[in-house]
Amino acid sequence: MVHADSSNFKADISKEEAYKQVLEQAEALFEGQRNWEISNLANAASLLWHAYKSLPSPSKDVNWAGFYVLDPIVSNQLILGPFQGKVACQTIKFGKGVCGTAAERKETVLVEDVEEFPGHIACDGDSKSEIVVPILVGGKTVAIIDVDCAVVKGFDAVDREALERLAGLIGGACDW
Amino acid sequence: MVHADSSNFKADISKEEAYKQVLEQAEALFEGQRNWEISNLANAASLLWHAYKSLPSPSKDVNWAGFYVLDPIVSNQLILGPFQGKVACQTIKFGKGVCGTAAERKETVLVEDVEEFPGHIACDGDSKSEIVVPILVGGKTVAIIDVDCAVVKGFDAVDREALERLAGLIGGACDW
Repeated sequence: MVHADSSNFKADISKEEAYKQVLEQAEALFEGQRNWEISNLANAASLLWHAYKSLPSPSKDVNWAGFYVLDPIVSNQLILGPFQGKVACQTIKFGKGVCGTAAERKETVLVEDVEEFPGHIACDGDSKSEIVVPILVGGKTVAIIDVDCAVVKGFDAVDREALERLAGLIGGACDW
Repeated sequence: MVHADSSNFKADISKEEAYKQVLEQAEALFEGQRNWEISNLANAASLLWHAYKSLPSPSKDVNWAGFYVLDPIVSNQLILGPFQGKVACQTIKFGKGVCGTAAERKETVLVEDVEEFPGHIACDGDSKSEIVVPILVGGKTVAIIDVDCAVVKGFDAVDREALERLAGLIGGACDW
């Protein structure tokens, strides 16, 4: 039985432990839910959000965590999926901003200071750093994980590795 | 241009004013986005969440705000859509719990104390009251708005009226 307790993280855990819980809970939640990628993404965004909020700065300064998915109609375009945080841009073209760059390159983009990133899309002026991880299925970008932080250098190699594992899990868990 | 500022609500506004902003911002966000109900629902959940958090109790005690949508595969079943809050049940059968009851009856269900509601689905033990408003298109339930509150009597006629207006707006704004 899915339960809100999955979003509860112990105090004083490390980032590695928090991500371990996210990955374990996500794997359990996705079980038998292959047709429902939106449900899976909605719960995954919730897990990530509550993990970050349980951690010290800079992780707790995360101000947006969620997904963009491939537009089923317009090619090379992402549309907003489930997320936690403030209102966000509804569409992003491949190649535009951090999200569109990661989608096009099919590789993680970790930006320590968004003001240094050419063409950054400033949906929220509070966002100072960002990590975007593409979800690849059959060599094609089907979605991206996008996390923004309200301080610079909000993300490091630990975030990159864990989010890439989550992307792999999500890519394999849903019928895209 | 969509901007996170849509989620910023002035301090000391009334519930009526907060909902007015939600409805105006939602209408603006939905413009020209008919094909993207998931994007629209994701942003609508964000607007609702931040509206509640700007208000005094009991509104600020809202602990879950989001959507369930009609399962495209299994009939008479809802699947989890975009939301803000903790991890939630992925599927709900029509007729089950507050959400399934509203979906089946095609009418708003406002529950002042969930423990008094027969068959309440306790995804989160923190939730004490709940309001569920069906989104109807052509006389059929296509989705529901679900809002939970961590105190009893979290919702009143103002919530009902505003959420029913939001349901009408969403029903008409997307190609379901």
